[in-house]
Amino acid sequence: MGVERVNFPRLKADLEALGRIGRAPGGGITRPSFSDADMEARRWFQGRLREAGLEPRLDGAGNITARSGDGGGPAVFLGSHLDSVPNGGMFDGALGTLAALEALRVVRERGLRLKRPLELVAFTDEEGAFGGFFGSYAFTGALTPEMVRAQQDVRGLRLADAMARRGLDAMQAPAARRDPAGIHAYLELHIEQGPVLERLRLPIGIVETICGIRRWAVTMRGRADHAGTTPMDARKDALVAAADLVVRAHRLGLEAAPHGRATVGVLRADPGVANIVPERAELILELREQDPAALEALAARGAELAAAAARAWGLEVEIAPLLRIDPVPMAPAVQAAIAGAAQALGLKAHRMPAGAGHDAQVVGRVAPAGMVFVPCRDGRSHSPLEHADDAACENGANVLLHAALALANE
Amino acid sequence: MGVERVNFPRLKADLEALGRIGRAPGGGITRPSFSDADMEARRWFQGRLREAGLEPRLDGAGNITARSGDGGGPAVFLGSHLDSVPNGGMFDGALGTLAALEALRVVRERGLRLKRPLELVAFTDEEGAFGGFFGSYAFTGALTPEMVRAQQDVRGLRLADAMARRGLDAMQAPAARRDPAGIHAYLELHIEQGPVLERLRLPIGIVETICGIRRWAVTMRGRADHAGTTPMDARKDALVAAADLVVRAHRLGLEAAPHGRATVGVLRADPGVANIVPERAELILELREQDPAALEALAARGAELAAAAARAWGLEVEIAPLLRIDPVPMAPAVQAAIAGAAQALGLKAHRMPAGAGHDAQVVGRVAPAGMVFVPCRDGRSHSPLEHADDAACENGANVLLHAALALANE
Repeated sequence: MGVERVNFPRLKADLEALGRIGRAPGGGITRPSFSDADMEARRWFQGRLREAGLEPRLDGAGNITARSGDGGGPAVFLGSHLDSVPNGGMFDGALGTLAALEALRVVRERGLRLKRPLELVAFTDEEGAFGGFFGSYAFTGALTPEMVRAQQDVRGLRLADAMARRGLDAMQAPAARRDPAGIHAYLELHIEQGPVLERLRLPIGIVETICGIRRWAVTMRGRADHAGTTPMDARKDALVAAADLVVRAHRLGLEAAPHGRATVGVLRADPGVANIVPERAELILELREQDPAALEALAARGAELAAAAARAWGLEVEIAPLLRIDPVPMAPAVQAAIAGAAQALGLKAHRMPAGAGHDAQVVGRVAPAGMVFVPCRDGRSHSPLEHADDAACENGANVLLHAALALANE
Repeated sequence: MGVERVNFPRLKADLEALGRIGRAPGGGITRPSFSDADMEARRWFQGRLREAGLEPRLDGAGNITARSGDGGGPAVFLGSHLDSVPNGGMFDGALGTLAALEALRVVRERGLRLKRPLELVAFTDEEGAFGGFFGSYAFTGALTPEMVRAQQDVRGLRLADAMARRGLDAMQAPAARRDPAGIHAYLELHIEQGPVLERLRLPIGIVETICGIRRWAVTMRGRADHAGTTPMDARKDALVAAADLVVRAHRLGLEAAPHGRATVGVLRADPGVANIVPERAELILELREQDPAALEALAARGAELAAAAARAWGLEVEIAPLLRIDPVPMAPAVQAAIAGAAQALGLKAHRMPAGAGHDAQVVGRVAPAGMVFVPCRDGRSHSPLEHADDAACENGANVLLHAALALANE
């Protein structure tokens, strides 16, 4: 078998066509699952599948799938998502989904014979308009009827109602489960959403692990006092302790290089008046690591820092868990297939963790999964500034194709 | 002249009666100027003046005045305010106003002969429902027609409309100006609103200076990045720099003991999402000092710290002035009168700055002014928890009376 390559002009035209759906004039793309824009993207994508001679199917969770090659047996799945965050970019999700379509088209039009079929999957609500990973949770059997009922958007629209408007029954979503034995491997191409590959000037990232997350609400409790009449040493300033924690946590993250992350994205001081010492400060501290033991150590240090910051200023602190996601390692065999593909294409590859969540993390809990990263400009994503250049997209799509062929034929 | 004393049971009954006006059941007092509660308090207070044989007058700014003794010549003014903050206490403003009434009653009913008359003044909107110090600005000639037109409350109600509803013409307020030559001295009794006297177990504070204030909006500008995918050393986290400044400013305040204050009461991070590195953080930094040179030095250090915090994290910073009030020294002769009164009454007195704003600060810019402080529980004020015990109120009222008599007779 020679080194097949994707038809990049065709893939680029697809990216541009999908990138017009849900785009504000001169701005970003807003295409949450089951919105009008998402429904238009689904119709367009199903049309592109049919034009390629592929038969689109819709499962109970609204995932769009299409299989290339003869019916049964474990398949190599290629997937990502069509939905976007509000005011997002045209590559996040779209690149992986359209590169998967391109891979299936190449196999079909060149008549490649594979030991195992390829199957494309475009997952519902990866970005979390209603909670996130709805499609991949359903696909992997992680979705319970209670979870389905709990899904709603920020305005209180229930996912079940949003699906019903589109003629879909959300309670059928758990039936979208696939037997993991039927998933020989899952491959996802995605923009990195960070600056690492761009900094290293490397075209391909091979994801080793998708990071785990510990997210806490931290509340410092002090005392409200008059900012003019209360001597500095008589204060219990909740914002000072919270600010101290922000700086300490950032330093903790710096010490946890290269893969540790410590972020405070939210901070609020009450009562929030210029001449009153804050009596209460709430912040959200988020820690990420790829290695389970390192994540536990980071979390332990984070909790110590919160307690130490409170103690240093004589305050009380409460720590409430908000989110706990364990790291998900990518399958060594899938990583090896990606590495082999990059080598065959003459592309240098860098092994790295994924810091953001992906459907591959959900699928990776039940079946061998892997991710291909390509650089994006300034590491930006979830923004109209999100951009991956042609070479990055083409390289990524070719690596996806070759890794898929290798996994299908092994 | 023997050592006259106030009729404390009568003063206490007045405090309790006024403390019922505008009070929420089981809660605090809400009596902003020209509210229904304030109008009720004004009617009640004017009634109490008439019962004491005093003739209440209303000036163009809505200040209530009443003079004891024969008409002309410079007077010793005793004042404070009847309005309250939302959900405030029953002593802030009320104690000084009612103690002034009590002093005038004592002079009248005991037939004391004074070289100069006493005049009571209850100032409009000290607390700032519409901007603050409206009555004392008018009284001292600091109020311009432009300032009158600019006054409005947080809901956009113009002071002029609030006064018109009560049959008052706000544009007459500048005519409330008194010739400073007619103000022999201004005396104000007030709860301390801080913990200093309580800590020292001293009954009387003699205010030396009312602190100056420098208040700035500080904006740190960084870059929004994904909290999972962006390595720590590639971030420009606006909240980290802002938090660093909060801690540095607090330490600056601690170093500026005993009279320096540095407070950040307001802090906001944008976009304020748990998994996005904040691109922008806004805070309000407020610095106070009693000494003009020390305040300038504190302000210079504060601005340096803001620049240093931005520089330390590689960000840009903007500093915009919000408020600039210079320190106002209290007149040595008035301080001496208060000290003499305390000594005559056998009360130990402590010289101290006032950290909060008061009408005495406005009057002190044009005429000799002084303030008597009494301890309040835990230093609390602007709260339903605000409390001054009977001994504190009685001591303060007696010192006010004696200082007024001394100033009137000197």
